[in-house]
Amino acid sequence: MEEALQPLLTVLHEVSDLGRARALLAWDERTKMPPGGAGVRAEQIATLTRLRHVRLGSDELGELLDRAEAGLDSAPRDSFGASVVRVSRREWSKARRVPADLRAEIARVTSLAERAWEDARERADFAAFLPHLERVIELKRRYIECFEVEHPYDALLDDFEPGMRTAELEPVLTRVRDGTVELLSEITSRPQSVDASCLYGDFPVERQVELARQITARLPLQPGTWRIDETVHPFATGIGISDLRITTRFEPGYVGTSLWAVIHEVGHAIYQNGIAAELERTPLCRSASLGFDESQSRLWENWVGRSRPFLAHIHPLLAEFFPERFAGTDREALYRAANRVQPSLIRIEADEVTYNLHIALRFELEVDLFTGRLAPADLPAAWAQRMSDYLGIEVPDDGVGVLQDAHWSAGSFGYFPTYTLGNVIAAQLWDLARAELPDLDEQLADGELEPLAAYLGERIYRLGGKLEPAELIVRVAGGPLDPEPLLRQLRQKFGEIYQLE
Amino acid sequence: MEEALQPLLTVLHEVSDLGRARALLAWDERTKMPPGGAGVRAEQIATLTRLRHVRLGSDELGELLDRAEAGLDSAPRDSFGASVVRVSRREWSKARRVPADLRAEIARVTSLAERAWEDARERADFAAFLPHLERVIELKRRYIECFEVEHPYDALLDDFEPGMRTAELEPVLTRVRDGTVELLSEITSRPQSVDASCLYGDFPVERQVELARQITARLPLQPGTWRIDETVHPFATGIGISDLRITTRFEPGYVGTSLWAVIHEVGHAIYQNGIAAELERTPLCRSASLGFDESQSRLWENWVGRSRPFLAHIHPLLAEFFPERFAGTDREALYRAANRVQPSLIRIEADEVTYNLHIALRFELEVDLFTGRLAPADLPAAWAQRMSDYLGIEVPDDGVGVLQDAHWSAGSFGYFPTYTLGNVIAAQLWDLARAELPDLDEQLADGELEPLAAYLGERIYRLGGKLEPAELIVRVAGGPLDPEPLLRQLRQKFGEIYQLE
Repeated sequence: MEEALQPLLTVLHEVSDLGRARALLAWDERTKMPPGGAGVRAEQIATLTRLRHVRLGSDELGELLDRAEAGLDSAPRDSFGASVVRVSRREWSKARRVPADLRAEIARVTSLAERAWEDARERADFAAFLPHLERVIELKRRYIECFEVEHPYDALLDDFEPGMRTAELEPVLTRVRDGTVELLSEITSRPQSVDASCLYGDFPVERQVELARQITARLPLQPGTWRIDETVHPFATGIGISDLRITTRFEPGYVGTSLWAVIHEVGHAIYQNGIAAELERTPLCRSASLGFDESQSRLWENWVGRSRPFLAHIHPLLAEFFPERFAGTDREALYRAANRVQPSLIRIEADEVTYNLHIALRFELEVDLFTGRLAPADLPAAWAQRMSDYLGIEVPDDGVGVLQDAHWSAGSFGYFPTYTLGNVIAAQLWDLARAELPDLDEQLADGELEPLAAYLGERIYRLGGKLEPAELIVRVAGGPLDPEPLLRQLRQKFGEIYQLE
Repeated sequence: MEEALQPLLTVLHEVSDLGRARALLAWDERTKMPPGGAGVRAEQIATLTRLRHVRLGSDELGELLDRAEAGLDSAPRDSFGASVVRVSRREWSKARRVPADLRAEIARVTSLAERAWEDARERADFAAFLPHLERVIELKRRYIECFEVEHPYDALLDDFEPGMRTAELEPVLTRVRDGTVELLSEITSRPQSVDASCLYGDFPVERQVELARQITARLPLQPGTWRIDETVHPFATGIGISDLRITTRFEPGYVGTSLWAVIHEVGHAIYQNGIAAELERTPLCRSASLGFDESQSRLWENWVGRSRPFLAHIHPLLAEFFPERFAGTDREALYRAANRVQPSLIRIEADEVTYNLHIALRFELEVDLFTGRLAPADLPAAWAQRMSDYLGIEVPDDGVGVLQDAHWSAGSFGYFPTYTLGNVIAAQLWDLARAELPDLDEQLADGELEPLAAYLGERIYRLGGKLEPAELIVRVAGGPLDPEPLLRQLRQKFGEIYQLE
């Protein structure tokens, strides 16, 4: 069996190497590249994308898959051989449907659009970004046309949540939205009782950089496998299982951005870092889905990073780095500050309650864009309307509104809902981990994060992309996606903080 | 014509993009990559190398070249069309001779060997590096066998100096060596009269980093097209004409390393930065040869960077950064310190006189390795012998001896002689530039470097790799490579400093 797979693996390794090289080009573009490099970089990324795509959808790979499938009858579904063949077949079939030129054009156009977005965001100038956005959307429409789908959004969603349809997603997101709107209205109906002022003040960026490094070093990543760099829009990317790039941005006036954004991105990296070594350089060397990926970024950011015990653990570190803000703040005050619920403009700075409303807004706008109910030019107005409806706040300019996220410039429509899926999954996993690890709180308070990482690693990380997300959640949680644990946990946590009945 | 070239250019762009992506992977490996990434990175680089090689040597490219050549009869030799076809044909023919697997294996093995070299160098442990070196040499032998050459070294040299043979190179290097040994013996026969102590002391690395940035910003590079990073062994690489990566290393006890190493690498970058935009993403987007490339690194490092007027220009900057070393040192003392001749162990810290002896040693050892006169295991002894013969010094350990350079671990045999070729060419060019720019000294003293850059840019940089080096030197200098201007200039400069008769 292993021997029969070799010719297949040779091609898959090549496809993987091209994809990871492209990831490095993209990481570099966002963190290190001199501005003069933008034009040629877009071409380089387009070329790697096209070559990868051609190889992935090649007749040769199809024949190698035919041959490998013939020898697989008795292999268990989650064996290396069966999984690599099944997942590769899926990717091959998708690649066959999309012309290489379209793939390369999307890569080229989004590479330039990201640069345009950076400028436009800085100047809060939506009009400057609009032509780029329109072009990206037009190309994504052509992409959708390559597939036979019930709903146009299905084709976009499938790139992030293999096998999931919009009709399955929408009720989950709507339930989370409605439950959250209700909880939020209870919280905001009374005066704000949480003081978060310890997180605001003067936090020199170099100190924050060092703090971010020290916190990351305490999280369960293998030493020598990661680095942190500054960027406009934080992300994490893996050039290999042991070569992880965490990025963040630092705000001199608010330490929360770097603190929790870093833990969030490290969460992604922990997942990558835990994938079984034998999956490296294959299509299995990735998370089960973006929703599962975000379940880990959100779990480490919020369920761990904003928990009482973990905050107690890092409190001395914060006090050491910024004594004037934290030496006089007790642990409980830090816990409350870290969990202040306050409708605000920026998604990545949002608290756990309002966060899912930022996602609902984006998901609904995306669906409207691709069903033709909304023109790209009307996005700022539609954005403002929903910000008012769900969060009750005004959008002063597009820089902190519709231009705040990189995703659309990168062509990543269908990505946003995975954040709420991540929260839903994280809550399901947290119930399980709590039951399985009775000393979890004590461990978090002691900074002992390995038991939790090992629990998740065994059940999720090491499997990489072997199973589809719908399959994995049933295997791990014993049932399908369920928004109720999330809503219950949010009500419990914030009910206590805000003394709701 | 332009239209007929399009299909050819499409393939050449792809080859270029693969090569530049590989260059970024290599830059990252040497400057940013977490150590855990090494294994997979070697595979990624090997894959890109193999794909580039296959595309470059493809039947398709051969046919496109046939077609393009048919339409070229009347095009001038240095026209874009004629040059791109001629140079691509040359590269295609070479690629056809080398199996893709060998190319990829060399890339894979050297990527790992470079990591092993870094460790071995740090621990001065030649034995640990030897198996890697032996493997690299064995692969390079197989590479040589792909070509029909008079001398085995010809095949290696041709990768750096297109069209040059060992029989042409050897007399030039021998003449420089003998002339230099003679000059050096005159200098060292009398007591050292130059005090370089201002360059030694306590130079905090962060201050040196900032100094390096400020000096680079004063050199003729387009703004927004470069960055400087730290590495073990300094190099410069171009990801595009406007995306240049300069690297250096900083020694806290000696400011000269970063100062002149940076100007040296910036010299390479100035050349790249001056290539005509229309050559981007083609095989013409490079220097005429490594010798020409080094002529610019050495010219900016030494003819400019260690000249009286330029040192007078940067003297206030040095005094501002390190007042305790330079505020009390006058310009003439700085000039003398920067030009102290002293046989020493490390090539990249060598003065202009002894530098070429470091090269002669390496060149001779390389030739001996590939003619079979020397076994890799005997390199340390042969190195020590020549260090004693040419420079009169003992080698205390291999870390500062045979392990000091990255080149051999990278498989770059045939590279070293290009440094002396660079010095020879730089001296020829300097005579010409002096004659053409009568105010050159005043301009350098005022930090006005554009006239010199424009002079060189017009004659050399903008042409990229259109002409072979033997052709370009005749066109620019009116005659072939000639070591005499270099020897004359060295004698003049150092004769004055050391008051030789």
